[in-house]
Amino acid sequence: MLTSEARSLLTVVLVGARNPSNIGAAARAIHDFGFGDLRVVNEFAAPFEAAALEAKSAVAASSVMQSARRFDSLAEAIADCSLIVGTTAIGEREIRQTVEPIRETAPRVTAALGRSERVALLFGSEKTGLTREQLSHCSLLTTIPMYQPEGERHLSMNLGQSVAVCLYELSREGFAGARELPELHEAAATAADRERLTQMLLDVMHTTEYARRFPANAAEPLVRQLVQQLGSSHREAMTWMGILKQILWRERGAE
Amino acid sequence: MLTSEARSLLTVVLVGARNPSNIGAAARAIHDFGFGDLRVVNEFAAPFEAAALEAKSAVAASSVMQSARRFDSLAEAIADCSLIVGTTAIGEREIRQTVEPIRETAPRVTAALGRSERVALLFGSEKTGLTREQLSHCSLLTTIPMYQPEGERHLSMNLGQSVAVCLYELSREGFAGARELPELHEAAATAADRERLTQMLLDVMHTTEYARRFPANAAEPLVRQLVQQLGSSHREAMTWMGILKQILWRERGAE
Repeated sequence: MLTSEARSLLTVVLVGARNPSNIGAAARAIHDFGFGDLRVVNEFAAPFEAAALEAKSAVAASSVMQSARRFDSLAEAIADCSLIVGTTAIGEREIRQTVEPIRETAPRVTAALGRSERVALLFGSEKTGLTREQLSHCSLLTTIPMYQPEGERHLSMNLGQSVAVCLYELSREGFAGARELPELHEAAATAADRERLTQMLLDVMHTTEYARRFPANAAEPLVRQLVQQLGSSHREAMTWMGILKQILWRERGAE
Repeated sequence: MLTSEARSLLTVVLVGARNPSNIGAAARAIHDFGFGDLRVVNEFAAPFEAAALEAKSAVAASSVMQSARRFDSLAEAIADCSLIVGTTAIGEREIRQTVEPIRETAPRVTAALGRSERVALLFGSEKTGLTREQLSHCSLLTTIPMYQPEGERHLSMNLGQSVAVCLYELSREGFAGARELPELHEAAATAADRERLTQMLLDVMHTTEYARRFPANAAEPLVRQLVQQLGSSHREAMTWMGILKQILWRERGAE
């Protein structure tokens, strides 16, 4: 579990990002996962300035963009960082360094942050990713494992999505919220089953005049939700339908 | 580890997405993580059609968009699915169902896919998320845990990023690629340390005429990469600098 202090030691570095929306998307992800430091390496100021301008209307990205900084060179941007982690899509170029999946890199990063070391997480440009020269600044290379069908050209992920996935992985163990839920049964009911059950239960509620006495309980969304508990298996769902059918038959037969 | 067959049984359902770029971003994430089925629930055809048009130029999104389908109602879109998982940002509205973090939901989803059940993963509109009515269709609610500082209004994640994070979590155990790396030392060298080392080592290479004899080995990126192995602790880095300084002093003194 990362403390706020540890979180403040992580720096996301976008190297050569060209699209202001991507810089803004990264800023939003940084905010969403409770980090704060964004650095953009770009000899041209335009993309960074455009992103800062755009962010003024986006609450989430805005606080991060306000304190974000632009650097002319990668070396300057990471000078105060101890652990330099480069992200790369495997397969695009020959890489001589070891690349590990982000789920294995994350514990190293959180451990370093926990030891009060400043960590830089580098993302390359949309078009080329991190170049060989940029990768050589890194102490550790990491990748988001992607599906690669045989024969298909390897494609890299969207920049904002990559940042979100990496920061999610760093935060994965970091927020409490585990709750117990009952195990699901082995055979499954379909949504169509449950929809039929919902309509039948509504029918029953109206026919039996339950709906007239307790109209609030007979609202369709509430009833559908009620049915979620019934239909965990197709067999159960069928049983419930049988019961409801029987009730309806009795009701209508008695009229 | 999900098989291709199991992957084909997952359906991503975007309910009421308005921004064509977000539909495209979701399609791209679906492709990146090896899934394929996208359904869009929207009574208006425009956003879906615009996304399909935009995707023609984006290779990754294109294959997914080609087979994507639009539905007028959520019930129709999920009728053939057994397990309906709704994503929601906690805190926005009162939710009466149990919400679990996506890392706990993922094993349930992969288990269901492994049993050849069709699973729907629902994402709400950019503005409102899944409504109460839409949530009532779900068998299970899940969330991407986000950082929420006290007093700050809760904000939801970007739609494309949410889809990417959820699909990443589903694929997290699904791709091989674990590799061994040596453990990091306790005290850390900074990038500035390593950059100084790089420049000094280059200086040594040139001064000693190593660079003239083996110019390929003296390329700056290669040297910087070489230095990554040296500078894992500040003490080590300092030691190396001392050695290099000594060599330079000897060389220059001897000239």
